[in-house]
Amino acid sequence: MLRSHNCGELNINNIGQKTTLCGWIQKSRDLGGMTFIDLRDRYGITQLVFNMEKNPVLCDEARKLGREFVICVSGEIEERSNKNLKIPTGEIEIIVEKLEVLNKSKLPPFTIEDITDGGEELRMKYRYLDLRRNPLKKNIELRHRMSIETRKYLDSIGFFEIETPYLIKSTPEGARDFVVPSRMNQGEFYALPQSPQTFKQLLMIAGYDRYYQIVKCFRDEDLRADRQPEFTQIDCEMSFVDQNDILETFEGLAKYLFKEVKGIEIEKFPLMPYSEAMKYYGSDKPDIRFGMKFAELNDIVKGKNFQVFDKAELIVGIAAQGCGTYSRKQLDKLTDFVKKPQIGANGLIYVKCNEDGSFKSSVDKFFDQEALKLWAEKFNAKPGDLILVLAGETHHTRKALCELRLEMGNRLELRDPSNYCPLWVVDFPLLEWNEETQRYHAMHHPFTSPKAEDVELLETDPANVRANAYDMVINGVEIGGGSIRIHDRDLQKLMFKHLGFTDEEAQNQFGFLMNAFEFGAPPHGGIALGFDRLVALFGGQDSIRDFIAFPKNNSGRDIMIDSPSSISAEQLNELKLKVIK
Amino acid sequence: MLRSHNCGELNINNIGQKTTLCGWIQKSRDLGGMTFIDLRDRYGITQLVFNMEKNPVLCDEARKLGREFVICVSGEIEERSNKNLKIPTGEIEIIVEKLEVLNKSKLPPFTIEDITDGGEELRMKYRYLDLRRNPLKKNIELRHRMSIETRKYLDSIGFFEIETPYLIKSTPEGARDFVVPSRMNQGEFYALPQSPQTFKQLLMIAGYDRYYQIVKCFRDEDLRADRQPEFTQIDCEMSFVDQNDILETFEGLAKYLFKEVKGIEIEKFPLMPYSEAMKYYGSDKPDIRFGMKFAELNDIVKGKNFQVFDKAELIVGIAAQGCGTYSRKQLDKLTDFVKKPQIGANGLIYVKCNEDGSFKSSVDKFFDQEALKLWAEKFNAKPGDLILVLAGETHHTRKALCELRLEMGNRLELRDPSNYCPLWVVDFPLLEWNEETQRYHAMHHPFTSPKAEDVELLETDPANVRANAYDMVINGVEIGGGSIRIHDRDLQKLMFKHLGFTDEEAQNQFGFLMNAFEFGAPPHGGIALGFDRLVALFGGQDSIRDFIAFPKNNSGRDIMIDSPSSISAEQLNELKLKVIK
Repeated sequence: MLRSHNCGELNINNIGQKTTLCGWIQKSRDLGGMTFIDLRDRYGITQLVFNMEKNPVLCDEARKLGREFVICVSGEIEERSNKNLKIPTGEIEIIVEKLEVLNKSKLPPFTIEDITDGGEELRMKYRYLDLRRNPLKKNIELRHRMSIETRKYLDSIGFFEIETPYLIKSTPEGARDFVVPSRMNQGEFYALPQSPQTFKQLLMIAGYDRYYQIVKCFRDEDLRADRQPEFTQIDCEMSFVDQNDILETFEGLAKYLFKEVKGIEIEKFPLMPYSEAMKYYGSDKPDIRFGMKFAELNDIVKGKNFQVFDKAELIVGIAAQGCGTYSRKQLDKLTDFVKKPQIGANGLIYVKCNEDGSFKSSVDKFFDQEALKLWAEKFNAKPGDLILVLAGETHHTRKALCELRLEMGNRLELRDPSNYCPLWVVDFPLLEWNEETQRYHAMHHPFTSPKAEDVELLETDPANVRANAYDMVINGVEIGGGSIRIHDRDLQKLMFKHLGFTDEEAQNQFGFLMNAFEFGAPPHGGIALGFDRLVALFGGQDSIRDFIAFPKNNSGRDIMIDSPSSISAEQLNELKLKVIK
Repeated sequence: MLRSHNCGELNINNIGQKTTLCGWIQKSRDLGGMTFIDLRDRYGITQLVFNMEKNPVLCDEARKLGREFVICVSGEIEERSNKNLKIPTGEIEIIVEKLEVLNKSKLPPFTIEDITDGGEELRMKYRYLDLRRNPLKKNIELRHRMSIETRKYLDSIGFFEIETPYLIKSTPEGARDFVVPSRMNQGEFYALPQSPQTFKQLLMIAGYDRYYQIVKCFRDEDLRADRQPEFTQIDCEMSFVDQNDILETFEGLAKYLFKEVKGIEIEKFPLMPYSEAMKYYGSDKPDIRFGMKFAELNDIVKGKNFQVFDKAELIVGIAAQGCGTYSRKQLDKLTDFVKKPQIGANGLIYVKCNEDGSFKSSVDKFFDQEALKLWAEKFNAKPGDLILVLAGETHHTRKALCELRLEMGNRLELRDPSNYCPLWVVDFPLLEWNEETQRYHAMHHPFTSPKAEDVELLETDPANVRANAYDMVINGVEIGGGSIRIHDRDLQKLMFKHLGFTDEEAQNQFGFLMNAFEFGAPPHGGIALGFDRLVALFGGQDSIRDFIAFPKNNSGRDIMIDSPSSISAEQLNELKLKVIK
C-alpha cells in the first residue's frame, strides 16, 4: 500500500511515530508561518502541518495545492496544541517531511461538505464527487453493512442464496417489463425480471426449501418521485411453512438488523388485519409511531339536516392532542391541505375542545354542545384537543384522512425518524376490482393463495376473499410483502379463471410453472423486502436516492454517463430492429 | 413449520422420540408385510416404515404413493435392524403413524438419482427436477458457501460491497452489448454491463478505496461450449495500491476460500511472466500441476537437411515420462490428435528413449544417435521417456504443443482435479495487434496502465510494452484477471491515441470517465474473478453449467421457460420499435 495508515485511525497513542498517508485535500489554511491541510479519505480527516521556517520549500509546494488534489505525505505524528475533540484524529497532526502529488484536481463544481452548495442536477452529473461527501459515504457504508448482516442472518438459519437469471421472459400481467432483443434468436426478446417470483417458486419445487437472494429487479414504469427503474430486493421463499413461520422468520431478520446495525431492541411486531388498518388508519401501511386513530361518526351525526354528512357514505375523523387552540389561520391551512388535488377532500370540519369543557365547531349550526360532546367521546378527546372530520365516499375519505393524520403527526413531531414501530398487516383481500378492465385483478400476484375458509366465496363474493398475504410495515413505509403461494394446480387454474385468463392464456404465460406444479410442488410461501427502502429507513431518510451509489433521475436517465443513448445503425441491424420515428 | 425435523438430521440419538417429516418420495419398496419408503428433502434421506399387520389402512395408503409425491408423516424413531452406514440417518427408521399427501406428482421424465437416465435437453427443460438430484444440490450449496465466505473475507479487510447499475450505456469497444430499449426516452437504449469496469473506477475516484461486488455481467457473444450470456463475477477495485498489493489481497482471498471451503492449505502462488508462460507452456494459463515444460531445439536441429525444421520458425517439444514404450498405434493416435483442425499441427516428430540408452525416432534419417542424445539432454529425458516435437510458426506451434502437453497430462493422470496449483501470470503485453482492423487493441482493456519503464516504447515498439496486468490461473483455468489502471488523464489520452481513437471518439465513449480523471483520481487497480468458473473448479468439474441454477443452452435459450420469445405488438409499439423480417 502507498500508505501506512488511513486518515481516520491515528490518535494520541501514535504520537512520535512516523506515518505515510494518502488522500484528498479537504481544505487548506495558510497562516503565514504555517500551512495546515485537512487530508481526507474514506476513513476520516487528519491535519497536516507545513512549517515555513523549518521547511520553506515543502511549505511553498503545499501552498500551491488546491482542494481535492490527491497527495501522499510522510511525516511524524505530533500532539496538537489546538485540539478538535469532535473527530477521533483531532488530538494529533502530521509534521510533513515528504509530499508527493499523486494527482491534481480541477476545482469541483460544488463543495465537498456535509451541507453542499450543489443542486440536485449538478450533483447527479458529478455523482463521483457527490459520493465523496460524508452523508453519502455513511449511506453507502450502511447499505454494505445491512447486506452483510442480512446474509449472515439468513445463512445462519439455513437459507441458500441462489442466483436466478436476469434474461427471462416477458409476462404481460403486472407492471411493464424492460425487454432485451436477442440477436441469436432474431425477432425475439428476453425480459428483465420484475422479481424472481416464478424462479423462486421453481426452486421450492426443486426442493431448496429456504432460498434468498439480494437481487436487482426492473420495472419500466413512469417514475414517480423516489422510484427507480432498477431497484434491489431481499427476495426469500420457504417450503413446508404456514404464514406464521414466514412472519416469525422475517420478523427475526428485521429485529436482528435493528439490533446489529442500529443497536435497537424491537419488541414483537403487532399483527393488524388489513380491514382494521383501513378502518383506523385509512392505509394498508399505517404509521403506528403515534395514535390518533380514526373514529367513525356515522351513527351519531346522520339525520341532523347537515347535508354534507347526510349524503356521505362515511363520516370519520381524528383528534389531535393539544391543538384546540389552533387559530383561524392554522385551521384554514389545514383545510387548504386536505383540499389539495392529491388529497382531494371537499372540506374539513373541526371541533375545538375548549379548556372549559365547551366546544367550538365549524358545524355549530347543526350540532349543539350536547351533540359535540358525543363526538368528543368517540375520539376520547380531552379539553385542549382538536377534532378534525372528513366526510364522503369511504375509500377516498379514509385516504384523505390518512394524509391529514400524517400531517398532524408531523406538526406534533410524533414521527421521530429514530423511533421505529414495525407491524405486520395481514389478511389482505385476494382480489381487487379494476374499473378500467372491469374485472378482478390479483392484489398481490396470481400465485397468492386464498384463505382456506374463504375459497368458497370465490364464486359468490370474490371481493371478500382474504388472502394468505402480509406486508411488513415500518413507520408508515411498506418495507416488504409476501404470501403463501398456491401449490395445487387445480386451485391455480381456478384462480386464473377468476382473474379472467383463458386456459390458453394461462398456459402461454405460466405454462412452465403450471407444469412444474404437477411434479410434487411443496406448500411454500415467501416475502420480498425492498432493500433500498429498508436502508433509507435505517438511515432515517424518506428518499432512497442517496442510498444508491448511481441512481437514475425521474426520467430514468443517468445524467452522469448520459444513458440511455442512441446506438449504432450496425447494432440495430444486427438485432433486426428499426426505430420508428 | 409443517415438520419437526428434516430428513437428514435424525440418528441413533433420537431413538424413541416422535417426529414429523416432510419431503419427496425417493423410492418405495413393497415387501408384502412391510412397505419401506425413502423420504428425501434438501438435507438427506430418511427411511419410513409402514406395517401391514399393525396398520393395514395406512400401509395400503402408502402403497399407492408414487415417486416424487410430497408427503408429511409423523411417527416414532426406531433403530433399524438392517443398517445403512453410508448415510447419517442410516441407523434409524420412522414407524409411521400418520400420513398426509401434500401434493401428488406425475412420473418424472427422468430418474432423480445421482446418475440419471435423462439427456441434457430433457434435464434443461425440467431443470426444477434436475435440481433435485444430489450432484446439482451439492453444486448449488457450494456456490452459496463460496459467496458467503468471499463476502466474509472481503468485509473483514475493509471492502464495501457497492451495487453498480445494470442499465448503463453501450460502448462499441470490446464484446457485443445486450441493449435495452427505453420507452421513456424513445429511440434510445440502455446497455447491460459487460462488467462494472467504469463504475468501479468512478468509485475509486469517489474515494471508496476498497470496493467489491458479486455481480451479474452480460455478453452477447456467439456462445462457445460452456459460455453463458449472463455470468457472475467477483468484481474488485482498490486505491493507493501497486500490483503487489492486489496480488497479495486476492491471493489471500483464494487461500481463504481453499481453506474454509475445501480444507486445503495452499502455499504462496508463484509468479510467472507472460513471456515465460508462453515459452514453457505455450499458454497464458499454464496448468502447473505437472512439469513437462517445453524445450526449444532450434539451435541444435537446424541445418541438418531436414526441411521441416529448416523452414520452421520454432522447433519445440516436450518429454513424456515413461512413454518410451508407446506402440506405433499409440504414436499414430497422438499424430492424429495434433493434426485435428482445432489443433492444426502438420505432423508430430517423436524420439523414444530406449531403456538401453539408445534412441528410436521418426527422423532417424536426419539425426543420428549422437544428435538425438543432444535432444534428450535438452529435455532432461531419461531412458523410458518419449520426446514429442512440433515445428512451425512460433505462436501456432506453441498453442498446438500446449494442447498436446495437456493431452499427455491427461493420459498420464497428472491432472488430478483435487490437486490445486494456482499461480499468477504477470507482465502481459499492453497491446495486441489485430490483423482484421490492422491496429493495436488493448489486450486487457483501454484503462490498463503500461509499466512505467516501458512507456517510452509506446512510440517505438508498441508490441513490447508490458502492462501492469495479471491473471490468476488455477489448474490451467483463467480464474480472473486485472490490472493497475491509468489514473492520469494525459496518459489515458495517449493510450486512446495508440488504440486508434480520435479525441472525439474517446470523449464520446468515455467522456464521463475522462472528465472524472480531472477531479483527483487516485492511483488504483483491481481484478475480476469468474465466479461460475471458480465454483466449478472447487467442485472439481470443467463445465460451469451445473453450477448455475438456471443456465441457458448454447443458443442462449432458456428452454424451461421458453425464452427469448416474441413480445406483443403493443409492447413493440410502446417502444417505437419494429422487427425487420
